[in-house]
Amino acid sequence: MAAAAPPPPTVPAELNMDLPTSYPLFTRIRLAAKPDVPVIHKMIHQMAVFERLSDQCSATEPSLAATLFSKNNPFESFTVFLIEASTTPFPSSSSTGVNHKFIPIHKTLNLDLPISDPESEKFTSSTMEDDVIVAGFVLFFPNYSTFLAKPGFYIEDLFVRESYRRKGLGKMLLSAVAKQAVAMGYGRVEWVVLDWNVNAIKFYEQMGADVMQEWRVCRLTGDALQGYATASGTDGLDLI
Amino acid sequence: MAAAAPPPPTVPAELNMDLPTSYPLFTRIRLAAKPDVPVIHKMIHQMAVFERLSDQCSATEPSLAATLFSKNNPFESFTVFLIEASTTPFPSSSSTGVNHKFIPIHKTLNLDLPISDPESEKFTSSTMEDDVIVAGFVLFFPNYSTFLAKPGFYIEDLFVRESYRRKGLGKMLLSAVAKQAVAMGYGRVEWVVLDWNVNAIKFYEQMGADVMQEWRVCRLTGDALQGYATASGTDGLDLI
Repeated sequence: MAAAAPPPPTVPAELNMDLPTSYPLFTRIRLAAKPDVPVIHKMIHQMAVFERLSDQCSATEPSLAATLFSKNNPFESFTVFLIEASTTPFPSSSSTGVNHKFIPIHKTLNLDLPISDPESEKFTSSTMEDDVIVAGFVLFFPNYSTFLAKPGFYIEDLFVRESYRRKGLGKMLLSAVAKQAVAMGYGRVEWVVLDWNVNAIKFYEQMGADVMQEWRVCRLTGDALQGYATASGTDGLDLI
Repeated sequence: MAAAAPPPPTVPAELNMDLPTSYPLFTRIRLAAKPDVPVIHKMIHQMAVFERLSDQCSATEPSLAATLFSKNNPFESFTVFLIEASTTPFPSSSSTGVNHKFIPIHKTLNLDLPISDPESEKFTSSTMEDDVIVAGFVLFFPNYSTFLAKPGFYIEDLFVRESYRRKGLGKMLLSAVAKQAVAMGYGRVEWVVLDWNVNAIKFYEQMGADVMQEWRVCRLTGDALQGYATASGTDGLDLI
């Protein structure tokens, strides 16, 4: 003798009125190319301001254009993913931004509040689609582990514009790089974080990353690097 | 009226007998290529033993051969310099090991004692020249600074075999990378060091490097990385 199933719970109509209205935000991650240099340049400078390192940032549009996207093969050299946002859906069959090496990743977010982006006009996508705004970027390139005998990716920069923060876009960019690494059979994704940036460290650990406490980055740059120009193989530097 | 110049100082003959006898060691830094994979493989495993990380080293000759030297252009991807040593001079007009992109660097060291290298037969140079032994290597590849809008080099590994240590070979390898970076107009050379390795840190600071105390390396690898394979663009991971 089967017991009668209880009736399914119902949500009273009056409670529905209290639920927050949802604002969809359509996002797309795609490979950047030369026409995107102006927005990338603006974001690099915003990142420098955010990090209080503006004095160290000498990137210009021409210098970026001269050093990025000169190779035909993304992922083999310096590579940029852009994350773009729109309040209207991206055409599903859109060929815009498609590169044979990477199929754009689409995701729809449901926000409690609409995005307020006072700089949207400065960050219009180079694809010229209506209402498509560049919200962030990640710049990465191959590295190599001799122990694994495998390439990996090193993430140099990950940046989300202020109006789009705390909505998961940074995680989506990092995930896109990790997914690409797995797809290529790579062994690692690495980056650096400032030791006092506890929120970032927590975020990265939640992403599955190990924060290596014992390693320190060594950097040879500026005059110290230029000094090696004149050190020939035969006179060289003093031996130690 | 000119004063008579003092006679030049002379070294008494009997003192000369106390001067140490000098043993010349001829060295050459050249680009590595596929035929060098076996010795590179042996050195990577010696390095893992030295760092007590043998359990993390899964590199094999085939896996290294499959991932190194597949590009025609050195410096644009993973690049290895070998330092080789000989007790007899390298032919000055030798074309061996010459790549159009890099002219080998020769330097003669004068040692107080001859090198005793019990493993010399295992490390014979792939160039098949007489009495040329591989003594160490450096593996590096391009990285990129968005602030400088310039590439640089990242040094993944620098290793000198035990019999050849404390003779300046590590410095010669690091200098060769720095010099190449300057020649290419690059902005930085970077690497990492363990924070407890005070001798290495002192050495790098003497080389002109800054040791960045605040940065920590984050690494996503193994199962944590593989987990991203199944995270699609639409389901993804939970947003934070």
